[in-house]
Amino acid sequence: MNDVIETILNHRSIRHFEDKPLTDQQIKTIVSCAQAAATSSFIQAYSIIGVKDYEKKKKLAELTGNQVYVEKNGHFFVFCADLYRHTLIGEKEEKDVSASLESTEKFMVALIDTSLAAQNAVIAAESMGLGICYIGGLRNNLGEVKKLLNIPDRVIPLFGLAVGYPAHITDKKPRLPFEHVYHVDEYEPNLERFYSQLENYDQLIASYYETRTNGQRKDRWSEQMANMLSKQTRMYMKEFIQKNKLDIR
Amino acid sequence: MNDVIETILNHRSIRHFEDKPLTDQQIKTIVSCAQAAATSSFIQAYSIIGVKDYEKKKKLAELTGNQVYVEKNGHFFVFCADLYRHTLIGEKEEKDVSASLESTEKFMVALIDTSLAAQNAVIAAESMGLGICYIGGLRNNLGEVKKLLNIPDRVIPLFGLAVGYPAHITDKKPRLPFEHVYHVDEYEPNLERFYSQLENYDQLIASYYETRTNGQRKDRWSEQMANMLSKQTRMYMKEFIQKNKLDIR
Repeated sequence: MNDVIETILNHRSIRHFEDKPLTDQQIKTIVSCAQAAATSSFIQAYSIIGVKDYEKKKKLAELTGNQVYVEKNGHFFVFCADLYRHTLIGEKEEKDVSASLESTEKFMVALIDTSLAAQNAVIAAESMGLGICYIGGLRNNLGEVKKLLNIPDRVIPLFGLAVGYPAHITDKKPRLPFEHVYHVDEYEPNLERFYSQLENYDQLIASYYETRTNGQRKDRWSEQMANMLSKQTRMYMKEFIQKNKLDIR
Repeated sequence: MNDVIETILNHRSIRHFEDKPLTDQQIKTIVSCAQAAATSSFIQAYSIIGVKDYEKKKKLAELTGNQVYVEKNGHFFVFCADLYRHTLIGEKEEKDVSASLESTEKFMVALIDTSLAAQNAVIAAESMGLGICYIGGLRNNLGEVKKLLNIPDRVIPLFGLAVGYPAHITDKKPRLPFEHVYHVDEYEPNLERFYSQLENYDQLIASYYETRTNGQRKDRWSEQMANMLSKQTRMYMKEFIQKNKLDIR
């Protein structure tokens, strides 16, 4: 196993950071690594906003459901899917690009591009001894986030990324069985095998939680997923995205 | 600069591979690294299909627009956003999860999860001396891809990933200026600065192409983007995704 694979396999989310800001050089390295990721047809459909202003960080912590590590970290990035730049380019080059930019296909491209870039940033940060936590809670209230960060149409903040020196290191969470996720030549159609693997994984996760919460929590993964998904959250998203002139056609 | 950052910054797409298959151990390491990526609320909303069958690879090469490296590589992965597993879990746990799974929010979550996993796979592969190429052309005809790989509803193949031993190493393509992509505290509102940076970048890209094609090609980035985006491609996507019971509400 090389250093890179070791770094990748060693990932866990960090939610407690030391009070020590990243240097400009560290930020530059992390962003440069993000930019080095592959990009669909060279479109580079993302922007990254680094939030330094303390009042803004505080407000973002509130908006993401009072997650203290959004406020207290070494640096806070907001990763945005960005097709605004391409809107401007269409105008400049006098080409009608709007149907294309409004398509579900390009919305998907922008999401994929942004996520590939973000994961490069994460691996780079972790390789420097930093910890990270993705903040999906940013999507709780994207309207407010956009206002706060002065974000134009066709730019959707997808998630935050808190980065910093770990003050507390958590355990790694066991992932789904390899055979559950990886299929050969076709999508595995054997439901019996699926349920039996799932049963084992459910037990594994239940005991993971049990050990770590002194028995207070012992939910199976299936249970956790079914409970989470039976609640309808962020159902404003479709309308919001379309109001932002994306994913319309 | 550490090994990890060096690996990340050294990325370029590889489109010519030696005729040498990856070992099962290599595949296992790559998939395990994919699975180590962060996942939104632990949802793990993706599957990976490794295509070994030569006839299927040949057919996929056709479907992606006759890209020979889809057929000839060390291994071919198909990365799929997957909420089918969660559909089954909803049934098993007797919870109504359909509204949630049909939401734009969960569609976004699945795309992000899949992409984070894929980029981990890429960095792991590159650290092993392998080269990669993402195959967005897979989305040219997702209906046929799904049939070929026996993929159920609520699973969307997002892209392919050709991996293998590089037979020809290309140059790195210069990315957008750092200041273009990275903003501090708010989205940069200065359009004058934007256009002047863009002008410089356009020149850089034009000479990049000019050098590498002996003057046959010298398109600016803006030009390239405006041309690409003025064509409407994969406009079947919205209907296709919704027929697959995703991104409906």
